[in-house]
Amino acid sequence: MNSTNPNNWKGLPLAEVDTPSLLLDADALQANIDRMAAFFVNRPSGLRPHFKSHKCTKIVRLQMQAGAVGITCAKLGEAEVLADAGIREILIANQIVGHVKIARLIQLAKRAAPIVAVDSEENARMLSAAASAANVEIRALVEVDIGLNRCGVKSGAPALALTRLIASLPGIKFEGLQGYEGHLVDLPDEAERAEKTRAALKPLVETRRLIESSGIPVNIVTGGSTGTYTFTGDFPGVDEVQAGSYAAMDWYYFDIRPEFRQAMSILTTVISRPAPDIAIVDVGRKGVGAEFGPPRVKDLPGASIARFGSEEHASISLPKDCNMSVGDHLELIPSHGCTTSNLYREFIVHRHGVVEDVWPIEGSGQMR
Amino acid sequence: MNSTNPNNWKGLPLAEVDTPSLLLDADALQANIDRMAAFFVNRPSGLRPHFKSHKCTKIVRLQMQAGAVGITCAKLGEAEVLADAGIREILIANQIVGHVKIARLIQLAKRAAPIVAVDSEENARMLSAAASAANVEIRALVEVDIGLNRCGVKSGAPALALTRLIASLPGIKFEGLQGYEGHLVDLPDEAERAEKTRAALKPLVETRRLIESSGIPVNIVTGGSTGTYTFTGDFPGVDEVQAGSYAAMDWYYFDIRPEFRQAMSILTTVISRPAPDIAIVDVGRKGVGAEFGPPRVKDLPGASIARFGSEEHASISLPKDCNMSVGDHLELIPSHGCTTSNLYREFIVHRHGVVEDVWPIEGSGQMR
Repeated sequence: MNSTNPNNWKGLPLAEVDTPSLLLDADALQANIDRMAAFFVNRPSGLRPHFKSHKCTKIVRLQMQAGAVGITCAKLGEAEVLADAGIREILIANQIVGHVKIARLIQLAKRAAPIVAVDSEENARMLSAAASAANVEIRALVEVDIGLNRCGVKSGAPALALTRLIASLPGIKFEGLQGYEGHLVDLPDEAERAEKTRAALKPLVETRRLIESSGIPVNIVTGGSTGTYTFTGDFPGVDEVQAGSYAAMDWYYFDIRPEFRQAMSILTTVISRPAPDIAIVDVGRKGVGAEFGPPRVKDLPGASIARFGSEEHASISLPKDCNMSVGDHLELIPSHGCTTSNLYREFIVHRHGVVEDVWPIEGSGQMR
Repeated sequence: MNSTNPNNWKGLPLAEVDTPSLLLDADALQANIDRMAAFFVNRPSGLRPHFKSHKCTKIVRLQMQAGAVGITCAKLGEAEVLADAGIREILIANQIVGHVKIARLIQLAKRAAPIVAVDSEENARMLSAAASAANVEIRALVEVDIGLNRCGVKSGAPALALTRLIASLPGIKFEGLQGYEGHLVDLPDEAERAEKTRAALKPLVETRRLIESSGIPVNIVTGGSTGTYTFTGDFPGVDEVQAGSYAAMDWYYFDIRPEFRQAMSILTTVISRPAPDIAIVDVGRKGVGAEFGPPRVKDLPGASIARFGSEEHASISLPKDCNMSVGDHLELIPSHGCTTSNLYREFIVHRHGVVEDVWPIEGSGQMR
């Protein structure tokens, strides 16, 4: 009888692991990390992997060992988790707004070197006032909207104006530019993705030159994704790429980037066999990030999700003559790793079908 | 400067609360609980509210005080949380499969009176063997598929056969039937919803009579939802209704059941104003259960979600002349409360705009 505490599962075969559990294939993970690191070895740009994809500091450590120049994250709470794990070089690729969060950011700046994105004068002035009152310096990137249509100022003159303001304010240091081509990272046609990505990055790098020619140094221009790392990481004037999904992978990015391996999966148990061709498993909406589509069934050709709707159940359409019983296991690959890792508290790390370790997902639930 | 720990937010106006935070309007919650309780006061059927909707034992306590006959939950981990809170009468409306979970269920049966759903001979035999070896008794409902097409055996003879098996086995006690009309609970037309619900319940209650006429007593027939409580709770032969969403509500059920109030919302901060009619707020897919549609904007007529896609951002289309600034708050109503409560660790409970209390969401992340 094995334990109900995942930390006691080390050494167990996966067949004895309780479900639903978020699995991580250690070999596939390392292969992905090595492959991405190899791309950046002889390039001017560096890799600053995105923490939001896996939210796990054990993976961060492997990424740093493989040569990452720092870590990207989405939330201040994630940055605090990273600082707790000893990481200093942390980019929060987002606006940090409000008194409570700015106070936390200032505390963070005393034990790490956070960088934040800024896209408004109000936010720049608040950061400056709080940081200079506390006698710390916050590093800032001006976020430029390069077509995603989310946060960010326009390229060219508006970006230069905000840069000049930041450079003039005490307590914050202008570090460079952020521009994320998030609207292009999933274009299925690779040539089109490359061309449109380069077109989107052009005004970002032109803005860099404009700022530099105004006499303000630009240390970092950052953007990119697993979907575009080969183009963004090779674009003159881009210094860092924020790819994240490549490490654990999901099927959405795997379809675009099949050079990586699917390291992440969800182990489930068949809890009902209501028909010869249907198995009901014990995971549903509550356990799989599915905004890019329902999960796929791993290692069982011909099986697919027949229905994925309720919180705790998925209905699997089985291939002919599949004699699966109540109690058997199935693995699912999520469409989106980032929202899936947020639903679990730990990765069950396995190698050759045996649990090797259990890694806490410290970034899970870091909403603020 | 207020604290970063929500437990220190008591007494603060909502304007000073950090975001994203899951809010709960105490007056609206109590009104919902009272309204639902009133429906059951003079009826033969009782209310066994579903824990999965809010996952918070402070709300459970209010529901029990208002007359609930017990609590329903979806996961064994939720049942353990309920037992920790002193609840004994716990229905796990799901199959408990596998050695690890059955061992936990047996431990639970020593400190509470759990009931589980069963729909296979394999599962019945495993429960029986484990329970009788441990000298405890597990209460069991035979789950009948009444059209949802998920778990469950067919009504009539197959249900009777599984009932007879369970009644013959040591360690498990046949308690009754479960049938959930989940495919009907959201039919927009109320008359159609009523008619189809009654038609679906008919074979369930006929199966009850069949089992009783075979000499086996049926103590509990259970099913239902917020969408159908008025029909299921009034149907002769149904003993308990498992409604859950009514307490905190979401907009999906509110559209069907406007007699309840929207007690749950998500407090967000405007982090960017990229255009005069657009505000970007600090919550996205990671912070809102949205499988029934994107969230709606609360208390701001004319505002709506322009784009809801990324994990940490939503783009709000603002009404004309709305002078909202970076740092201002907005509230969103999720389409689905059950998956939303799973994303947060606490409810920020407010009354008249002031934080009254902070309630842990103990069921959050209880996957197993």
